[in-house]
Amino acid sequence: MPQLHLLSPIGFRASGVYAGIKSVTKPDVGLLLCDTLAAAAAVFTRNQVFAAPVAIGRSHIRSGRLRGVVVNSGNANACTGKQGEKDAIRMCQLAGTIAKCPPGQILPSSTGIIGHMLPMEKLERGIIEAGQYLGSSLEHANLFADAIMTTDLKRKTAAATFKVGRQTAVIAGVCKGSGMIGPRLGPPHATMLAYLTTDVQIAPPALRKLLAAAADDSFNAITVDDQASTNDTAAILASGLSGLKVNSPKALASFKAALDEVCQALAYQIAADGEGATRVVTVTVEKASSDSAARSIARSIANSPLVKCAMHGADPNWGRILCAAGMTDAPFDANKAVLKLQNTEVFRRGRPLPFDAAAVSRSLKAPEIKVLLSCNLGKASATCWTCDLSKEYITINADYHT
Amino acid sequence: MPQLHLLSPIGFRASGVYAGIKSVTKPDVGLLLCDTLAAAAAVFTRNQVFAAPVAIGRSHIRSGRLRGVVVNSGNANACTGKQGEKDAIRMCQLAGTIAKCPPGQILPSSTGIIGHMLPMEKLERGIIEAGQYLGSSLEHANLFADAIMTTDLKRKTAAATFKVGRQTAVIAGVCKGSGMIGPRLGPPHATMLAYLTTDVQIAPPALRKLLAAAADDSFNAITVDDQASTNDTAAILASGLSGLKVNSPKALASFKAALDEVCQALAYQIAADGEGATRVVTVTVEKASSDSAARSIARSIANSPLVKCAMHGADPNWGRILCAAGMTDAPFDANKAVLKLQNTEVFRRGRPLPFDAAAVSRSLKAPEIKVLLSCNLGKASATCWTCDLSKEYITINADYHT
Repeated sequence: MPQLHLLSPIGFRASGVYAGIKSVTKPDVGLLLCDTLAAAAAVFTRNQVFAAPVAIGRSHIRSGRLRGVVVNSGNANACTGKQGEKDAIRMCQLAGTIAKCPPGQILPSSTGIIGHMLPMEKLERGIIEAGQYLGSSLEHANLFADAIMTTDLKRKTAAATFKVGRQTAVIAGVCKGSGMIGPRLGPPHATMLAYLTTDVQIAPPALRKLLAAAADDSFNAITVDDQASTNDTAAILASGLSGLKVNSPKALASFKAALDEVCQALAYQIAADGEGATRVVTVTVEKASSDSAARSIARSIANSPLVKCAMHGADPNWGRILCAAGMTDAPFDANKAVLKLQNTEVFRRGRPLPFDAAAVSRSLKAPEIKVLLSCNLGKASATCWTCDLSKEYITINADYHT
Repeated sequence: MPQLHLLSPIGFRASGVYAGIKSVTKPDVGLLLCDTLAAAAAVFTRNQVFAAPVAIGRSHIRSGRLRGVVVNSGNANACTGKQGEKDAIRMCQLAGTIAKCPPGQILPSSTGIIGHMLPMEKLERGIIEAGQYLGSSLEHANLFADAIMTTDLKRKTAAATFKVGRQTAVIAGVCKGSGMIGPRLGPPHATMLAYLTTDVQIAPPALRKLLAAAADDSFNAITVDDQASTNDTAAILASGLSGLKVNSPKALASFKAALDEVCQALAYQIAADGEGATRVVTVTVEKASSDSAARSIARSIANSPLVKCAMHGADPNWGRILCAAGMTDAPFDANKAVLKLQNTEVFRRGRPLPFDAAAVSRSLKAPEIKVLLSCNLGKASATCWTCDLSKEYITINADYHT
């Protein structure tokens, strides 16, 4: 079977070009178009300071229908006032001209530095050029994925097929994100950007509901630095061209499973490629008193700079994990809790356990670390993904000037 | 006037000795005793995972009376179960024997690594030795201040005198804290430790109320890494020996002003000596819709790793500040906000302002940085103190093993 990618679902074309917005010569303008007026849904940042493309995108997604997405990296078009909104609309107009649709059927996105006006001359030329290089190959999908990257070191893609009866459809996605990562995406919540394509037939309200649910257990469950950006956006477009109708409970369940899988695979890649990351940390909290308690505790652990530094140093300093677990308002009792680091139990119900510190330290040098905290207060569980905190994070965010 | 210090208020003696708990040969056991049964108040961490000495301290402070404080550094006696509590009580027994008082009149504290049993043999010898070196000189105050330090690079002390009519009294304090700093001290709320002495006569309930209020605008307004520790404690002992009675509204106001001044001076020193800090950042949010909104926004800015990295790099990347301001649930509208960095206005009511980036960057290389955000939504204001985030923070918390 050939490799699945963003443009494997039937009915999508994309491109990515370099327009001179980024300081490095890499694609910085991307265009993703659907041949049909796709059923569409999007979730945006809950930050009260939201970028111009988020303001325009919220308006454009209201119809539940989109023809495409136009996006630039290198500049967030955030904190740019009325001119910023005009510039975001202009991006949609140019993309709409290419797609032969009204600007309201295009979702605009931007990512990069906050507080600078978009270089519209370069950007306009870039969008027009992107329109000339549209295609459906793996290479086109990769150029689009590259065009949305900022401090990302790795391209992030995921895809899944699923069946309903004898029919098969594809769901695929790309995303970016490395710093300013602590998304709180809301129905109507991520500077992460994620774009998903599928060729099923689905009603926009169902798509919206499924995307919001998928985001909660994927993009909203990752953190690099707990910063919910001004631009976070996840969007999905369904072309309908596979003919597979997602409306029965069985089809919805099957689609949901594939959507959740793709979103989690994408979110995991963001955590793993966090600024300065050398390893990814999966924090699972189980037997918590409620879902929100489990999420809150897992997120508190995943956000602790002390835990993240210990993980960077492969230091089994588990006290920092319990301290972070107790910091939230969610019910937590150290006298009931059990903590495992990479499958080694280090703490049980109020008491530290003897363990081979050197062996656990060696096990913490793996590229993937598992922290498992059992609260023993209930039945709820949640998982958060984060990365270690290294000197490289400081280099990326302090040493190079804006 | 001679230099004021922790033991300047009448009726206090202290000492600090090296008992071999720390890996470096520096004082690690401290004893602070009052000649009288002092009116006393304390606030402890709100972390649900609280150390054994916090559990015991909460019980001992209930009477509003203390004879003294016994403290060790190098080991937090946290997550140590029932044995940890017995050990904390044993510390009080030994100190009580020295002070000739019941153990319940001693406040115990510990700070250091979580999850290790106290080395009681060394600690017992240390407390007994500390009892043999008590005194009231500046040198004694300094030894006590040194005995509570962990990753602190600088000793932290503050003192103030105040008058009511013709009478004068002194209020003084020492504190420690460098990492795991994001105190949420509550009335009954800090791994910061702070101990204050005064020689006024004051009722314990009034003292408790004033200490809690002072903590909110000082220790609870600082953050290094937003981690509310298992051991945070701030305590004050009033010997009464100056004869100055603090019971009239005027005397209470005068005492409150001095207490607030000393607590803020101590808290500022913790922020300035944050792990890896090269500069201190004062974040002031004004014209917010409510006190809690102002605090929440100021704290969100002060906690942003991206803001802290930018400050480390002297990078006027103000977009990160607005992003952090919008992240909270507190009302905030970029279209009304005005932002100043070191007195240079960089953003006004939705729009970026042109400014001399090189000049602002130079101004950000000062040891003290001021961030002033006017919300223009109300009349409330709040200030938070933090430090920049440097590679040294990673070195301290990742490179050296526990």
